[in-house]
Amino acid sequence: SVNPDLASERQTASFCVEKLTALLDGGAEQTRIRRAVVEAIQSDPVFSREDQYFQTQNERYEAAVRKAVHLQKKMHEMGWTENGPEYKYIYRALSGDVAFLLHRVFMRSISVLGSDKQIAKWIPLATQLRLIGSYAQTELGHGTYLQGLETTAVFDIATQEFILNTPKISAMKWWPGDMGRSATHTVVFAQLYIHGKCYGIHPFIVQIRSLQDHSLCPGITAGDIGPKMNFEAIDNGYLMLKNVRIPRENMLSKFCEVQPDGTYVRQGSQKINYFTMTTVRISLISDEVLTPLMKACTIAIRYSVVRRQSKLKPGEQEAKILDYQTQQEKLLPQLASAYAFHFINDYLQELFDRGYREIQRKNFDMLPELHALSSGFKAVITHHSTAAVEICLRACGGHGYSLLSGLPSLYTKILASCIYEGENTILLLQTARFLIKCFMAASAGQPVPPSVTYLAAVKSGKCPAKNKLDFLSPDIYTEAYQHVAFRLISSTAAKLQDLIQSGAKKYNAWNQCTVQLVQAAKAHCHYITVKNFAETVEKLETKAGIQRIMKHLCDLFALHGIFSNTGAFLHDGYISAAQMDMVTASYLDLLAVIRKDAVPLVDAFDFTDKSLNSALGSYDGQVYQRLYEWAQKSPTNKMSPAYERYLKPLLHNTLSKL
Amino acid sequence: SVNPDLASERQTASFCVEKLTALLDGGAEQTRIRRAVVEAIQSDPVFSREDQYFQTQNERYEAAVRKAVHLQKKMHEMGWTENGPEYKYIYRALSGDVAFLLHRVFMRSISVLGSDKQIAKWIPLATQLRLIGSYAQTELGHGTYLQGLETTAVFDIATQEFILNTPKISAMKWWPGDMGRSATHTVVFAQLYIHGKCYGIHPFIVQIRSLQDHSLCPGITAGDIGPKMNFEAIDNGYLMLKNVRIPRENMLSKFCEVQPDGTYVRQGSQKINYFTMTTVRISLISDEVLTPLMKACTIAIRYSVVRRQSKLKPGEQEAKILDYQTQQEKLLPQLASAYAFHFINDYLQELFDRGYREIQRKNFDMLPELHALSSGFKAVITHHSTAAVEICLRACGGHGYSLLSGLPSLYTKILASCIYEGENTILLLQTARFLIKCFMAASAGQPVPPSVTYLAAVKSGKCPAKNKLDFLSPDIYTEAYQHVAFRLISSTAAKLQDLIQSGAKKYNAWNQCTVQLVQAAKAHCHYITVKNFAETVEKLETKAGIQRIMKHLCDLFALHGIFSNTGAFLHDGYISAAQMDMVTASYLDLLAVIRKDAVPLVDAFDFTDKSLNSALGSYDGQVYQRLYEWAQKSPTNKMSPAYERYLKPLLHNTLSKL
Repeated sequence: SVNPDLASERQTASFCVEKLTALLDGGAEQTRIRRAVVEAIQSDPVFSREDQYFQTQNERYEAAVRKAVHLQKKMHEMGWTENGPEYKYIYRALSGDVAFLLHRVFMRSISVLGSDKQIAKWIPLATQLRLIGSYAQTELGHGTYLQGLETTAVFDIATQEFILNTPKISAMKWWPGDMGRSATHTVVFAQLYIHGKCYGIHPFIVQIRSLQDHSLCPGITAGDIGPKMNFEAIDNGYLMLKNVRIPRENMLSKFCEVQPDGTYVRQGSQKINYFTMTTVRISLISDEVLTPLMKACTIAIRYSVVRRQSKLKPGEQEAKILDYQTQQEKLLPQLASAYAFHFINDYLQELFDRGYREIQRKNFDMLPELHALSSGFKAVITHHSTAAVEICLRACGGHGYSLLSGLPSLYTKILASCIYEGENTILLLQTARFLIKCFMAASAGQPVPPSVTYLAAVKSGKCPAKNKLDFLSPDIYTEAYQHVAFRLISSTAAKLQDLIQSGAKKYNAWNQCTVQLVQAAKAHCHYITVKNFAETVEKLETKAGIQRIMKHLCDLFALHGIFSNTGAFLHDGYISAAQMDMVTASYLDLLAVIRKDAVPLVDAFDFTDKSLNSALGSYDGQVYQRLYEWAQKSPTNKMSPAYERYLKPLLHNTLSKL
Repeated sequence: SVNPDLASERQTASFCVEKLTALLDGGAEQTRIRRAVVEAIQSDPVFSREDQYFQTQNERYEAAVRKAVHLQKKMHEMGWTENGPEYKYIYRALSGDVAFLLHRVFMRSISVLGSDKQIAKWIPLATQLRLIGSYAQTELGHGTYLQGLETTAVFDIATQEFILNTPKISAMKWWPGDMGRSATHTVVFAQLYIHGKCYGIHPFIVQIRSLQDHSLCPGITAGDIGPKMNFEAIDNGYLMLKNVRIPRENMLSKFCEVQPDGTYVRQGSQKINYFTMTTVRISLISDEVLTPLMKACTIAIRYSVVRRQSKLKPGEQEAKILDYQTQQEKLLPQLASAYAFHFINDYLQELFDRGYREIQRKNFDMLPELHALSSGFKAVITHHSTAAVEICLRACGGHGYSLLSGLPSLYTKILASCIYEGENTILLLQTARFLIKCFMAASAGQPVPPSVTYLAAVKSGKCPAKNKLDFLSPDIYTEAYQHVAFRLISSTAAKLQDLIQSGAKKYNAWNQCTVQLVQAAKAHCHYITVKNFAETVEKLETKAGIQRIMKHLCDLFALHGIFSNTGAFLHDGYISAAQMDMVTASYLDLLAVIRKDAVPLVDAFDFTDKSLNSALGSYDGQVYQRLYEWAQKSPTNKMSPAYERYLKPLLHNTLSKL
């Protein structure tokens, strides 16, 4: 039985939910395939996540390994393959709660960086899980700056081996997943030395545990780095190497090889490899960022129509909390951003597919733009979505704070996406470097990549909006975003040049501009996101109310961005104070409009109760019942030894009846 | 041995750290007393927190009970009393990791709401821990809106008893600390019925567990609500009552009594009781908000001078990450806000002490202002500090994400302060209601409380700053903050009146203004904080460099607030675009100035390594060593059954040597 407060929300949907789901999936056939995968995974008790909020880190690890091994069988059973249409839905259906994710990175790095011979040797074994791989790049003292890695691999001509060492504690490998307890092998990144000369960072396959009894190999110190904010299921590990010898053939040698006599040979273009690194940043957006953001919106919005608190109108019953303007203002912009990021992700995926085809034709022209976009969007989307999930959590008050709401785990996990695969600030500065370069080129009349052609046009003028309805025009707000991006990029470029012309060293001038460079990079990505959302809406079919509701969300996303950052738009008077009051009015009006469709809009994400794993977010909205039933299963409801040890001696002498 | 990268930071302090510590403590004698308490607590192994990041919820609970019982002995041993000068340092020294905190609330509610007879009966037993109390107000379906509580207490004249019931699941008590597993008694808030008439919410003492064997009393269903984002040590509980009978004497009856014949008598003034509720919001700021904020700043700033990453200047060694402008911009404003909130907390404490004296003299005039200030500042300080701790966590990259950094626990705990003791949005709207009322009064020429007299003066004009140095003048920026607060309050008041004059119902008009009302309330509190910081600095002695560095921090706090919220200041042109560029320049300049004293400024908070409990924040800065040593103790470094069960069957058939 569905909670009537939730059921009533579904009766008044202004659009067809099933059609919107199909749009999000990329077609009704995709929806069908996804649902079949979800059904197969979630009906299998081995994949159950129901106990996860009660489990220790050890129990989570154990379960993740069990699931990974079982998944191999399941795929065989179901006829699913790594290249099949089902594959992308499996991870999502498991909510990422499975071991051997780094094993996959191990395989990918061999496929990309290894010679044909190396691929032929290692990939079949890895595919069958007859060894377990990891990927050991990050060190205790080194993350973003790869050149700073300290692990060494010295070539010994006499034995035709590399000798690997961890010269000091900051060089210890730290964080690699699957390495703390599972892996038998890993790809170690180390500074290559031949005849005392350093050739920089190269990848080496190193066995770290015995295949017979799983004991550590000679010279290896390894273990688990202990508790983290999330990822309990993953055995992130540490690794120290002491005179570990590996054969010459274990250096991955598609691009670089050390010949038997110690000659170092570089071959082929590494550009395809850089491209692979940028695609990882794009591919994580969907699984690691959008899915949790959509789940958080689903949970918080369903809860907000079931939770009643205080009276809006005297004499009536307590109001649904989503009827309060402040609650709408918390949640609905996050919902709009989930859609905005879904569409920009589609755009980026297409762009990268096109880039891949170009690169295969040896055309590397798109690389700088793709690198800048992948860096900037990874940073902006992870940052914004992390903040959004936190807002959803807080908007559910005390119940959001219970692990059983599902929100704390979503938050603590998505937070990591701001740090891994490139720390966000570093990435934004990469984007900024590209933007400044393009701005200079554009100013000098040189051609620039498509996404930044707006930097070439002369900008001036004021926003032409005359009343609050004008701000529901995509041209009006897209232009405003473009104006701000242009202003921030050009003014920071000017500051940079001023500093250099006043005698500052280039690196110093750069550092003094970085706070503003980060702002400029964010503004650029925000502009592209708004523009893409508006263009996407334009192309949607008008049937079934889809285009209309998407237009509202696009407007809300754009106006929320202006409302939350008014200074950027007011600064040079592009938007006047009177116009800003119109923005505010339109923005607040939109909240009330979208509130009516809020539940259908999250229903369209089509999460099952099992994938939400939340007492607040279930489809039926039976929140209180679920919290109570679930809490009773907590191990904290077993008798504690604290009573016999500490409480009994205190209480036993009190009068028995007070 | 102190890490030389950290040691060098201490050699160049521009002020005397010990003098600043004494200033923060309120005098050198207080520092001495505090350190003695810290030493006594932290040298006692029972109070150790070293294992806490590895422990399960059950283990944390067990340890917290052990500590609470041991603390009672310790206090006796040390001659510490609840009214002694040491008392306020004990909780801080334990980092709150102790049971029976709600037992203290149980005692306070009896002291405040109970008759003399009730106090004489219950308080001695509770003081000696011969019973364990809790405080059961919040229900599954009811938090902020007390009138909505559904638990009932029906008076039965025949037996002179109250019959307590949980009429439906949403009425189940949910969240009370110490209730899940420990409490024998609790104060239950329930709707009082006499002869079928409801008299509203009243407090009742109810025994829930046997004093003989701790089994649940007849009619009681109770247990632990399960895992939360933090507070593992606390047994937050649930409670259902089914025809539970308690004697008439168990209704707390200082203000209201039910006489044997069922006559309901209200006596005395409850105002002092409301006052007690507002003081709780102020008292939590110091322990639950400022301390974690200061700890997070200490950890992140010490780490940022030890962590070197990438090169700032080509050819040199990798730079300390605190030398990057972006890192300064993350951390130093948080440091400034820790000081700003410390000083506003002093101001609020004084104000409330004065308020208490007035109220004892039956003068209740200050109550509305105190209520508004306590609500607003609780919300603003908890919100800002939670965001600050999160920034500190992220600024430490991957290592900040490890529980061993201490930052995740600080974050997940401080986050709760945004929700408990009044959800922040609700509180800000209370403040806003007061501000609107005062604005109306001021506009009508009526007198208003001291903190809002600025609403009476006519505001106009522009910011007079001529260059970036002018923005280091407290008069200039304080005036700007006042201007913004005035503008937001007055414009929202105008919108509210417009809506009502256009025929909107009052409650509807209010709801349509709440997003802006929240902004207005925040602006008011921000203004008072800046003003108080500037006035405090003015009064400091100029010796030992203290005043100078505090002036820098005050400037930074104020300019960061403008820089982060430029729109509010630009909106009506009070600050022009050219002036805003000066603000930005001054703000960025200040970062470089304060960066030099960053480590001494956190050293002044005077946390011991044990109280930080962080691998990144230790006084000696031996970060990597500590992470490695600590991680090895993790239970995840024991052999997992996953190997025998799942991995061995896979790996055993692989070639032994690859």
